[in-house]
Amino acid sequence: MTRVSRRGLLLGGAAAGGAALGGGGVALALRDGDAPASADADEQATYPFEGEHQAGITTPVQRHLYFAAYDLTANATRDDLRTLLEDWTEAARHLAQGREVGETGAVGGSPLAPPEDTGEALGLGPNGLTITFGLGPALFEPGRLGLEKKRPALFEPLPSFALELLDEATSGGDLCVQACANDPQVAVHAIRNLSRIAFGRAQIRWAQLGYGRTSSTTRDQATPRNLMGFKDGTRNIKADEADELAAHVWSGGEGQDWFAGGTYLVTRKIQMLIESWDRTRLDEQEAIIGRDKGKGAPLSGDTEFTEPDFEAVSTATGDKAIPMDAHVRLAHPDFNTGQRMLRRGYNYVEGNNALGQTSAGLFFIAFQKSPRQFIDIQNALARDPLNEYIRHVASGFFAVPRGVRGGEHVAQDLFA
Amino acid sequence: MTRVSRRGLLLGGAAAGGAALGGGGVALALRDGDAPASADADEQATYPFEGEHQAGITTPVQRHLYFAAYDLTANATRDDLRTLLEDWTEAARHLAQGREVGETGAVGGSPLAPPEDTGEALGLGPNGLTITFGLGPALFEPGRLGLEKKRPALFEPLPSFALELLDEATSGGDLCVQACANDPQVAVHAIRNLSRIAFGRAQIRWAQLGYGRTSSTTRDQATPRNLMGFKDGTRNIKADEADELAAHVWSGGEGQDWFAGGTYLVTRKIQMLIESWDRTRLDEQEAIIGRDKGKGAPLSGDTEFTEPDFEAVSTATGDKAIPMDAHVRLAHPDFNTGQRMLRRGYNYVEGNNALGQTSAGLFFIAFQKSPRQFIDIQNALARDPLNEYIRHVASGFFAVPRGVRGGEHVAQDLFA
Repeated sequence: MTRVSRRGLLLGGAAAGGAALGGGGVALALRDGDAPASADADEQATYPFEGEHQAGITTPVQRHLYFAAYDLTANATRDDLRTLLEDWTEAARHLAQGREVGETGAVGGSPLAPPEDTGEALGLGPNGLTITFGLGPALFEPGRLGLEKKRPALFEPLPSFALELLDEATSGGDLCVQACANDPQVAVHAIRNLSRIAFGRAQIRWAQLGYGRTSSTTRDQATPRNLMGFKDGTRNIKADEADELAAHVWSGGEGQDWFAGGTYLVTRKIQMLIESWDRTRLDEQEAIIGRDKGKGAPLSGDTEFTEPDFEAVSTATGDKAIPMDAHVRLAHPDFNTGQRMLRRGYNYVEGNNALGQTSAGLFFIAFQKSPRQFIDIQNALARDPLNEYIRHVASGFFAVPRGVRGGEHVAQDLFA
Repeated sequence: MTRVSRRGLLLGGAAAGGAALGGGGVALALRDGDAPASADADEQATYPFEGEHQAGITTPVQRHLYFAAYDLTANATRDDLRTLLEDWTEAARHLAQGREVGETGAVGGSPLAPPEDTGEALGLGPNGLTITFGLGPALFEPGRLGLEKKRPALFEPLPSFALELLDEATSGGDLCVQACANDPQVAVHAIRNLSRIAFGRAQIRWAQLGYGRTSSTTRDQATPRNLMGFKDGTRNIKADEADELAAHVWSGGEGQDWFAGGTYLVTRKIQMLIESWDRTRLDEQEAIIGRDKGKGAPLSGDTEFTEPDFEAVSTATGDKAIPMDAHVRLAHPDFNTGQRMLRRGYNYVEGNNALGQTSAGLFFIAFQKSPRQFIDIQNALARDPLNEYIRHVASGFFAVPRGVRGGEHVAQDLFA
């Protein structure tokens, strides 16, 4: 049998150079020894894995998402968790540079052994891959792993919310990994290989593919549209808003070193009843959202980025221009004690259900300093008429440790 | 309520200009009056909707797929089918130019009516969208729609194949629409709006999202990799191989005008047992496929595009370099009376199943002049050791009418 290259070994050589990457900028890298398939900037982008905070939170939102939640195996110990996070960190360092996992990759090593890497991302650029790790509340349960003293005080399971219809099998989890990339195959490849590495210590509980980001974290990204056809995330916190990030996103740690510079991650799978929505009058759609469908301007007028004027009155009707129960009003910081979240959701479409309805909606992801931000705003949305057209069908809640520096592994302080 | 733009009306004005597009080249178009979000060539690409053959077959393979199969409603008549194809053709002309469906789009028309277009593709470029229509064999059943005399002689339901485990609910269908685009939201938007237009005449039976093309139709596209990590589609028929297309893809019509220049479309949802595959030795993976995993060269040596030498003997083992049951040998034209297919499949990933295994694989799409091409090759693959790692879980079979010209609608001759 002829093997014309040992790409994994070539990569081993490239690794030393790759390790010099870092800092705040965007560097270029190649996945393997082949010529790059494209010089496209989105394909060749890389983001540093190390930093004060984990990547994939304020990073410019990539085009595609693969999100996985894992459960530890029944008999896993604290040491299993520690070695898993060590191994995942090592693999993530490779992946974030557009490299394969392991030292011998997909086609190196012994032909008598399974390849270390699954290989489907060979020839693809790094595609701006970021990998973000989170820990579920159950890891800190007393008597389970001996981590109860490491639990941030606010880190308790989310309460129940009005109207939610959660599927347990696709909710929760002991650990999560958010992989974002400009190519879906690169995001899926990352999760798949991290799952292989977890074998015997943790297995996937649920996973979610998303596309079409529904928010921006930088001002040069146009505001995308969700599957209701409206611009979504206009008022999202941006990466350059240091004061807002400090106030709303980055945790001081609640006394836990591993969480200082971390944040809380909430996911909600929000099914949209799009066939019903699509039969709704345009003016009703706009009244429910509180924004114009075309430009995305608040119904009080002007442009997408104009602050809503909640007191403005429609001359035509004599009522408030932005209805009292409009989504934009109910969710606005002015009516939620100033609270904001950093959002990073994606659209999803998964064929159709047994009733012939499209299985589609928003995979909502938000980062916040305190779970109260999500809880309070979600409670305020209980009277949102949008609820006629959406269902929260799955939920995830994780604490995202601070970023790693100088060769640390993720959540290293957890085991100190 | 303020509405700052009537983008649909702007589009009405743009439509006349858009109609001048056509011919064999790639033109530029904008979805709405906004500045384009990107000058990216993939985003701004358009392909002509009219032509001798339908688009989306030899068109350079786009990055994303949304494929839908529809059933006619129980009491639908031949006239319902005809008007549906008329309406779909009209909408597809708009969509292929990167425009919204209808005359008033997503934000024009009366605010008291539901918008004509669902709106989620506003602001996105045309993204090379192609829409390809097909007809299922059940449309031609005697006594159903009066179309029995229009049935091509070879157009009968596919036989059963060894080892397949087909799910009826996600197989078959009276009609199909293949939407391919460089942005998944554009492909999903097309199917969603065609489904709305079909309301009362047909509804979606099943739909499939795909990403990461697994074949190329032009020589400048690098061969992509499937989820087994191998290059896939190396030997695919290319758009510039006129003799091969005439010999293997384009039908002479079998006496039916509507089918002259058409082709048969087969879809197979092929679940991969990737966890098992990933634990297989590299040399076994390569022996099963018959190709090197790194470069994609046949195991008889040289480069990806070297013809396999099926007689070559391995000096190490004394056996054939390409094993007698290797996939590349079993599927090769030399062992299948010269038969070839034009392939256009995509990878899919859909979270994981109840056993914790990844639900992922290949959504196989192939176009061929005769169903025998698929049937004979699939039968030859019954003894493929790859079957240990794959399951055919869904199947579709459709006759794709010739392309439309001069304002015709799809399958117009069917009703002559």
